[in-house]
Amino acid sequence: MTSRRRRVMQVASGGAVTWCSDDVSTEEPLEIRVGNVPLSVTMRTPGDDFDLVAGFLITEGIISGTNEIDVMRLCPEAAAESGELNVVEVTLSPAAASRAITPRAFFMTSSCGLCGKASIDAVRTRSQWAARDDPLRVAPAVLLGLPRTQRDAQRQFSRTGGLHAAALFDSAGALICLREDVGRHNAFDKVIGWAATQGLLPLRSHMILASGRASFELTQKTLMAGIPLLAAVSAPSSLAVELAAESGMTLIGFLRGEQMNVYAGHERIARE
Amino acid sequence: MTSRRRRVMQVASGGAVTWCSDDVSTEEPLEIRVGNVPLSVTMRTPGDDFDLVAGFLITEGIISGTNEIDVMRLCPEAAAESGELNVVEVTLSPAAASRAITPRAFFMTSSCGLCGKASIDAVRTRSQWAARDDPLRVAPAVLLGLPRTQRDAQRQFSRTGGLHAAALFDSAGALICLREDVGRHNAFDKVIGWAATQGLLPLRSHMILASGRASFELTQKTLMAGIPLLAAVSAPSSLAVELAAESGMTLIGFLRGEQMNVYAGHERIARE
Repeated sequence: MTSRRRRVMQVASGGAVTWCSDDVSTEEPLEIRVGNVPLSVTMRTPGDDFDLVAGFLITEGIISGTNEIDVMRLCPEAAAESGELNVVEVTLSPAAASRAITPRAFFMTSSCGLCGKASIDAVRTRSQWAARDDPLRVAPAVLLGLPRTQRDAQRQFSRTGGLHAAALFDSAGALICLREDVGRHNAFDKVIGWAATQGLLPLRSHMILASGRASFELTQKTLMAGIPLLAAVSAPSSLAVELAAESGMTLIGFLRGEQMNVYAGHERIARE
Repeated sequence: MTSRRRRVMQVASGGAVTWCSDDVSTEEPLEIRVGNVPLSVTMRTPGDDFDLVAGFLITEGIISGTNEIDVMRLCPEAAAESGELNVVEVTLSPAAASRAITPRAFFMTSSCGLCGKASIDAVRTRSQWAARDDPLRVAPAVLLGLPRTQRDAQRQFSRTGGLHAAALFDSAGALICLREDVGRHNAFDKVIGWAATQGLLPLRSHMILASGRASFELTQKTLMAGIPLLAAVSAPSSLAVELAAESGMTLIGFLRGEQMNVYAGHERIARE
């Protein structure tokens, strides 16, 4: 269930009180285990959990595609009291399992972190696909239409008002996949995991839209999926801009109303 | 520096292009080391780093107060190429250091996670202060005035449009401390860390306001600081509501315009 109904006291400025019911977005922890070893816990909106896990493993650089997953299952023996199944167990293919698993999540347990390295290098994963020489060119009018398409598809949003969205579009602006989550990184992982199971990676002629801000983490996930263009309705961070510029990716911020800011990869914006 | 100036291409729907400069929020990794062991890496806006680290250690339950920190320093030998100092090293007091460090951040490396436990128990830390029997009672008009006070104080926001804010208020609605960050959990840690260094914990007659949504994580940080009331401009998650209700905390969502939703702890809302 992506939302739960709660009894809520609505209070106006004069102190007038109304009791009503309100749908709040479900947030539950999801533990990801690989070969019996707990790898990560993420706070997520339940649903599309297998896509989420596949996307997480790909964007963290642990696997290169879903063909490296032998078995994925929800653990019924680890059910929460609420009945939610909050543990996903993954068995990797022998080839993938033999590689060392060193995702960024384990960075904190490594002996030495950021010493002497550029900070951007210390936290980034390496994409198997370069975001250069791809065929993507998009007209401004197509880009400016994306937020409306996304909002129209976000029926859930109007119910709880509390979910981030990630939307994958083709180069003509047609919506390919929309996922929502209390965590924006999870929404990205769900979209990318879904695309991976459909055999669509790398997404070299696609664009992805974030409902909020563009952080370093979202830029990195976009890159790991081979997507050459990330657009955000709100602001990008400095490290997002740096990573996009360094990687040849297009990064658009403040995509709203009748204009947008292009922070990197201007050559993909088609000029009349 | 909390923001960096970037050259940006502004594109309108017809394709008209303007080049201008734009301030983007700085995002840099911060590694927190305790006794030479890397504990966590967070993506944050540089500034108030010592407050951030103190707040993180307190809200993760690693220390009970700043008196348990013997030494805290930025490591100049670990400077990034950009010149940013992105590593903070903490030496705990002998008493604190002798306790086992088992923050939630290390949850992922523990042998067994959510099995057979209620999910809310599996990820939560325990507060040393109960959010019950505190003196806080607030009139609706005071609460409804908080977002405007916060926005007025957020000069930074108007520059980059990309920062989350956490604002601490006293029971009369006076702003005590405001911090901004690319990560909303960091903004909370900066506020709570600052309060700790001022000897203000537990903040039993205070309120904290989040500029965005109320997640489980923010609710937990609020609880760990002894703050009995968390308000958010946007929606709460299901687990935030559950944790607040279970802990006797007041949780307010959609605090905007002329009304608000009270999800838990209604008794602290003063009625005429």
